[in-house]
Amino acid sequence: MRYSMLGGGKRVRPTLCMEVARVFGAEPSVTLPSAAAIELIHTYSLIHDDLPAMDDDDFRRGRPTAHKKYGEAMAILAGDAFFGEALTLITVHQKGTCEQILEVVRELAGSTGVNGMVGGQVVDMDLTGVGGSADPEALRLIHTFKTGALIKSSARIGAILAGADAAGQKAVSDYALELGLCFQIVDDVLDATSTREALGKSGGKDAEQGKATFVGVYGLDGARREADESVGRALASLSTLPGDTSGLRELALFVRHRGH
Amino acid sequence: MRYSMLGGGKRVRPTLCMEVARVFGAEPSVTLPSAAAIELIHTYSLIHDDLPAMDDDDFRRGRPTAHKKYGEAMAILAGDAFFGEALTLITVHQKGTCEQILEVVRELAGSTGVNGMVGGQVVDMDLTGVGGSADPEALRLIHTFKTGALIKSSARIGAILAGADAAGQKAVSDYALELGLCFQIVDDVLDATSTREALGKSGGKDAEQGKATFVGVYGLDGARREADESVGRALASLSTLPGDTSGLRELALFVRHRGH
Repeated sequence: MRYSMLGGGKRVRPTLCMEVARVFGAEPSVTLPSAAAIELIHTYSLIHDDLPAMDDDDFRRGRPTAHKKYGEAMAILAGDAFFGEALTLITVHQKGTCEQILEVVRELAGSTGVNGMVGGQVVDMDLTGVGGSADPEALRLIHTFKTGALIKSSARIGAILAGADAAGQKAVSDYALELGLCFQIVDDVLDATSTREALGKSGGKDAEQGKATFVGVYGLDGARREADESVGRALASLSTLPGDTSGLRELALFVRHRGH
Repeated sequence: MRYSMLGGGKRVRPTLCMEVARVFGAEPSVTLPSAAAIELIHTYSLIHDDLPAMDDDDFRRGRPTAHKKYGEAMAILAGDAFFGEALTLITVHQKGTCEQILEVVRELAGSTGVNGMVGGQVVDMDLTGVGGSADPEALRLIHTFKTGALIKSSARIGAILAGADAAGQKAVSDYALELGLCFQIVDDVLDATSTREALGKSGGKDAEQGKATFVGVYGLDGARREADESVGRALASLSTLPGDTSGLRELALFVRHRGH
């Protein structure tokens, strides 16, 4: 668990959670237990997605994946344990009203189950092999569930803990869904164009496995255009918010222009 | 998920949760969302424990295990999804005060992570191969974590939702820990003495895999004696409770004398 959790990573989700809290006038660090819990859940999903039965990846963040280092059984169990530990972080350490904390748990429950992260991975596995002939809508659906749901929850949890109203929660949800989409498109572009050294994980694996990707469906230039449009919509969603959104704008531009 | 969830099972954990609520004067059915959530989490643990990288079991409840039927990837994901869905059941459907529901989540968080179910499975995997030379204390530790923690939580959650005081919660915790221990000892006895037809899963696997078991450590008669002593302590724990404990007594005797 330490190996996978502390081996680097961009920490996009906790950063998003904390920056959203700032927009609504809260001290970002008040969200730390929940923000960390989200990263634990994200790490669990990476460990399980990398397993031989799933994407069968040997490298992650520049190092052997958990199952390469500790074996499959320990990798499955490390992922499993992260979920319980994430809930402990929230239910024992998160400050706020009982209603806020329960709402945080409810949010994560929804984004990690059948209608969230796991459902998206199921469809992703089902479509492996179809490659460039994937339906663009199916592709969006995969990523709305697989990565978008947890990224959206990261933003909503920041908003919930900062006491944002429904309109504020809606605005950051819209922003986060586009951020998640952009993140995935850029992932696909990087997979198609970067080396393992730059990525920290094996590149070119998507094409090799016949994964449904944005590059496969739209081509390289088309995918870059989709990423630009997505980040444009993300920034537009922020315009209705009264608070300081500079951190969220910076995060969107980082996600679009990152090189790894 | 349906295949594994609806393929039978003794439903010991939800029964325990509901019966404990009755002892403290609540209508057992008020605990149903949480009781069902516990069974989802239990089912997830069975699916993952059966995986080839773990106990590598081909049969469960008289049918092929999830990975035999749907492949390893879908089995891992079905297990993963159960956790999120369990939390949705509790956070969306469980009735009670916010504090009670948050306490239910906190209870499950503690019993499913490193200091609970998953931690126990890790030690169990580590001790596979040592067979009869396992330290009796290590063996108890495995099962206190691996199966005991969730069984204890089942009882505590019934008590929490029924508004039991600390002494009441303690009494049913003690009962449940012994019930869990007895359950596991009987499991080991059945594995050593029953056929696949009676068990619904492959018998004799523990010895084959060199698992640390109560039969391996105490012998068959010794294990039966341990089970009797354990059920005796379980029943004794109930004596301090003022309510109707007949359901819990019956459950303890069922767990001791079951044939599958």
